[in-house]
Amino acid sequence: MGEFELLAKLRERLPAPGPRVRLGSGDDAAVTVPGGATATSVDAIVDGVHFQREQSDPEAIGHKALATALSDLAAMGAEPGEAYVYLGVPAEVDEDECLRLLDGMAALARATGTTLAGGDVTRAPALTLAVTVVGHAEAPEQLVARAGAAPGDVLVLTGELGGAAAGLLLLKRPELAAAVPAETAARLRRRQQRPQPRLRAGRGLAAAGASAMIDLSDGLGADAGHLAAASGVALRIDAAGLPLAKGVAEVALAAGQDPLELAASGGEDYELFAALPPARLGDASSAIGEAEEAVLTPVGEVAAGSGVEIRLPGGGDLKPDGFDQLR
Amino acid sequence: MGEFELLAKLRERLPAPGPRVRLGSGDDAAVTVPGGATATSVDAIVDGVHFQREQSDPEAIGHKALATALSDLAAMGAEPGEAYVYLGVPAEVDEDECLRLLDGMAALARATGTTLAGGDVTRAPALTLAVTVVGHAEAPEQLVARAGAAPGDVLVLTGELGGAAAGLLLLKRPELAAAVPAETAARLRRRQQRPQPRLRAGRGLAAAGASAMIDLSDGLGADAGHLAAASGVALRIDAAGLPLAKGVAEVALAAGQDPLELAASGGEDYELFAALPPARLGDASSAIGEAEEAVLTPVGEVAAGSGVEIRLPGGGDLKPDGFDQLR
Repeated sequence: MGEFELLAKLRERLPAPGPRVRLGSGDDAAVTVPGGATATSVDAIVDGVHFQREQSDPEAIGHKALATALSDLAAMGAEPGEAYVYLGVPAEVDEDECLRLLDGMAALARATGTTLAGGDVTRAPALTLAVTVVGHAEAPEQLVARAGAAPGDVLVLTGELGGAAAGLLLLKRPELAAAVPAETAARLRRRQQRPQPRLRAGRGLAAAGASAMIDLSDGLGADAGHLAAASGVALRIDAAGLPLAKGVAEVALAAGQDPLELAASGGEDYELFAALPPARLGDASSAIGEAEEAVLTPVGEVAAGSGVEIRLPGGGDLKPDGFDQLR
Repeated sequence: MGEFELLAKLRERLPAPGPRVRLGSGDDAAVTVPGGATATSVDAIVDGVHFQREQSDPEAIGHKALATALSDLAAMGAEPGEAYVYLGVPAEVDEDECLRLLDGMAALARATGTTLAGGDVTRAPALTLAVTVVGHAEAPEQLVARAGAAPGDVLVLTGELGGAAAGLLLLKRPELAAAVPAETAARLRRRQQRPQPRLRAGRGLAAAGASAMIDLSDGLGADAGHLAAASGVALRIDAAGLPLAKGVAEVALAAGQDPLELAASGGEDYELFAALPPARLGDASSAIGEAEEAVLTPVGEVAAGSGVEIRLPGGGDLKPDGFDQLR
């Protein structure tokens, strides 16, 4: 496989560049004219670590690589702009598979208004996709960091939890699918393999005055911990109020796991978790509704102190696995 | 090795963020306030493909990963701004080695005014470093693309050729070092392992009116071909005028290779190759001189047509290996 030849074929399939892009893929660097502020993030997925190449369509892998990166822009309330892609290709992955990976990425890029503006392709021992995304805002103050939550703020969550973790269980142990209707199982697997970055919800929450925000990649327990630490506050979450995705309870129980535990510790839901002043809750709900994204659920409150408490209905606390393993 | 713990230690060693950075590493995304235009590029290196981990200090690997990415900004005439780093870490690479990789990168970041503003670290089967760099300019017109060379322009080259290729030969076949003084051999190996991006020279050439520019990563033959194709012109290069690095001739001959061939086809010199109107040659030479970078050598001219001709002193053309293999 020739590098320049492959790059030329990949470039042919790229969506047209957005209005900020003055020089797209194919030169030493892409040239853009940004708005007032940019948000930039890198996310990488590696075969055998974050996905199993045999279990996914190439299009789904390409989709997921871009989706997880864009989710970080959603968590800032940024408008998606450009993506720059590193693709590490092992010898057993042929040109057709590379093009299908790009097709999956390009479809999500089109749907979200993201320009695939550049990249690098090399040989690698395992299929590797590292995506750097650049989002835009008129001013840096419009972007929402993890720091900023204040005691008295309410905690809100977009969409539903546990779907990606249940989907992963179904992919690893196909026999668990008997616990739910086929359509539900398919939806859960899709949550794992084709996450949707909550870009419009993120902009809605930012515009409604979210004081701090993060996307749920590591799981609610871990990510709430990051937000609490960055903001220097304590978070109190009501476990009974957590919105579980349909089928999560059945799959968790079939696997011998506690559903709330799975939902709070399972990663990769890519929902948004935010703090905002109680007076803004109405605005935030309207913004999310208008964005035709997932509904907004209040799940707890911010208090003085530190750490995350996830209170169980019957009393006591949930201790979600706070995994800190390089993966 | 814990991911969050490692990230915290890596972050402690980062140089202070530059003036454009409003929120650095550690949040969902970095926030910057760019100037009028940005140039963005990704470059990746993988153990066993682009370097041999056993042959290099970790610091040199970190340096090279950032240097090759910054070289693309040099080729645009951009001012270096931010870098975002994906680090893929195999199980056999420990925390200390990761920190040393970052130290090598951080030293070059400091020297060039680059902020290491974010990144991602994952497990990977081979040590992988993919670096996205963002450079700045006041306006997009100040940046120099590969397209733009016009018939009648002169072709110029910064610094010297062949050093990195000779250095690679010395690393692969240590016995060849007998052909040159030890100091020369060390300098050639250093050209291979610690390339210096020609950032100030690139800005000088851009300011002096370069019409097209590229950095030499694939080798003069291949990269001149890219510039010729993008500009829609023919390039005529005088092989006798090519500035070979000291010791290249001796090492090439000891390896049974033609020195000019090695210099024109060997990659990774990361010198800049540019076209500019003849009237601007004086300005360009002064700009490079003021930048205290490598001298500027006129090496040929732009003509109507297509393709690259590298004319040998005795008549005939050099046909540098135009490698097109994914690596």
